[in-house]
Amino acid sequence: MALLFKGDIDRGGSWERALARHAPELELRSWPEIGDPAGIDYALVWAPPPGLLAGLPNLKAIFSIGAGIDHLASDPELPPTVPVVRMVEPGLTTGMTEFVVMSVLYHHRFMLDYLAQQRARAWREISQIGPQERRVGVMGLGVLGQDAARRLLSFGFPVAGWSRSPKSLPGVTSFAGAEGLPAFLGQSDILVCLLPSTAETRGLLNAGTLAALPRGAAIVNSGRGDLIVESDLLAALDDGRIGGATLDVFAEEPLPAESPFWDHPRVVLTPHVASMTIPDSAAAAVVAQVRRFEAGQPLEHVVDMARGY
Amino acid sequence: MALLFKGDIDRGGSWERALARHAPELELRSWPEIGDPAGIDYALVWAPPPGLLAGLPNLKAIFSIGAGIDHLASDPELPPTVPVVRMVEPGLTTGMTEFVVMSVLYHHRFMLDYLAQQRARAWREISQIGPQERRVGVMGLGVLGQDAARRLLSFGFPVAGWSRSPKSLPGVTSFAGAEGLPAFLGQSDILVCLLPSTAETRGLLNAGTLAALPRGAAIVNSGRGDLIVESDLLAALDDGRIGGATLDVFAEEPLPAESPFWDHPRVVLTPHVASMTIPDSAAAAVVAQVRRFEAGQPLEHVVDMARGY
Repeated sequence: MALLFKGDIDRGGSWERALARHAPELELRSWPEIGDPAGIDYALVWAPPPGLLAGLPNLKAIFSIGAGIDHLASDPELPPTVPVVRMVEPGLTTGMTEFVVMSVLYHHRFMLDYLAQQRARAWREISQIGPQERRVGVMGLGVLGQDAARRLLSFGFPVAGWSRSPKSLPGVTSFAGAEGLPAFLGQSDILVCLLPSTAETRGLLNAGTLAALPRGAAIVNSGRGDLIVESDLLAALDDGRIGGATLDVFAEEPLPAESPFWDHPRVVLTPHVASMTIPDSAAAAVVAQVRRFEAGQPLEHVVDMARGY
Repeated sequence: MALLFKGDIDRGGSWERALARHAPELELRSWPEIGDPAGIDYALVWAPPPGLLAGLPNLKAIFSIGAGIDHLASDPELPPTVPVVRMVEPGLTTGMTEFVVMSVLYHHRFMLDYLAQQRARAWREISQIGPQERRVGVMGLGVLGQDAARRLLSFGFPVAGWSRSPKSLPGVTSFAGAEGLPAFLGQSDILVCLLPSTAETRGLLNAGTLAALPRGAAIVNSGRGDLIVESDLLAALDDGRIGGATLDVFAEEPLPAESPFWDHPRVVLTPHVASMTIPDSAAAAVVAQVRRFEAGQPLEHVVDMARGY
């Protein structure tokens, strides 16, 4: 049984070592050395070259290295009948929750203002409000959104969630669909975006929807860059309607050097690092799925490609 | 029954309103309008002028507005037989835990490096480690330290604590006393200082003890400024032995404009705002103590003035 591996960035062989450790019986083929295409049973990939997967006649399943699968959906020749599995592994979830909690606390505690004061050598206390007065809205209530929402609740923030269809999460106020969006945004003092990039979500946050947020709201985007119309967000940041933003993802990555986000005083900018799949725990998750599938059980976390996530 | 109130900074009457709401039966005297000194039973104060409390012959207890009591200990005329009560109230604890968790995550996630990269318009991923590989050490395991330690544990960080005498906290490795300090520091990748300022703790972190930390360790000080010999910390930050610091407290406050901390690239600086006593919840805590004491029960959180905390 063979697995084709094609990673995102070079991690010094840590994927190969992790896969060998968790499944010594698996024959590992590292792209571009794929050998006989007919002998490949599974693929674990990030952004495969278009057509690569279509050339594997006996492929049983495609595992995405990331939680998002937009890097696969852009392949026009993606085999339509082979199941695509999103990455769900504890390392990815842990990292995203760390990033979301850190960023929400950063805005809650006025740290962009304190950063500006530090640069100005100004010692001035800003009147703080308690977590119960800071409403957090989480867009996207999949595995990552649910974990972040639970952790935010434990800090005392009132947490609401928005998703395509209503979700039931203890302690989280649920909003759903286009009709639920204005009310959800209207009560989000800090908005966390964890949505996938799909035909329905691209450009979802634009001048019109951003205007529904409370004045001075903060945004944390660690979902996908194209969820937000960047020029609209910039205009809202410039005139103070949006008070601050932590942006980890962008419409174009790497972010072009001329982007006004780089030196915007109300922006915390990170290079798509909110969460990374950890080879060791991810290899364990993929190997467990392969073994389950080979034993006749269904795959978990299969993507609905028509829906886009 | 009368209570004398003397606050720290003007909070627009919110203390007075909170006290009236929680104890309408209490006669409130706001400094400097103290009326007949003999009629005052309790005092709720921050940094009272030396001699003020000594002039109240029937004072039953002194409540500190903050968790620390160094602002009282500096009064040479502090009445030696009147119990001093530190502030323990949920708002203060919540705020400190928010600040500590935010700051630990900030260093754990290399945010000072990403801030420098943002300024340089550099898009570069830094290899992240998991929380289980980042050991956090909490100095001071009182009410605040224990709450912060518990919350840090929930993120998966291995947490150790150091205090004067050994403490038993589930999941937290305990170190104690001068003999336990080198081993504690040697395993603290991120060091959180929540100690009070006492004769024993002043200058505890100096060139010698800072050298015991792992190379590149980060420090979060939201205890008291004089715990750290600032020139020693600066030297360690300059040569990289200490990788970064979040400093909320300083030997001299407000921090003088000429301090090198203001524009140090490895320092996050806040103006003693890690946690603030919240008038509403604090008034409730003080009123509950007064009622308990009047009913013949002992006061809680009484300070050992000889020990200094």
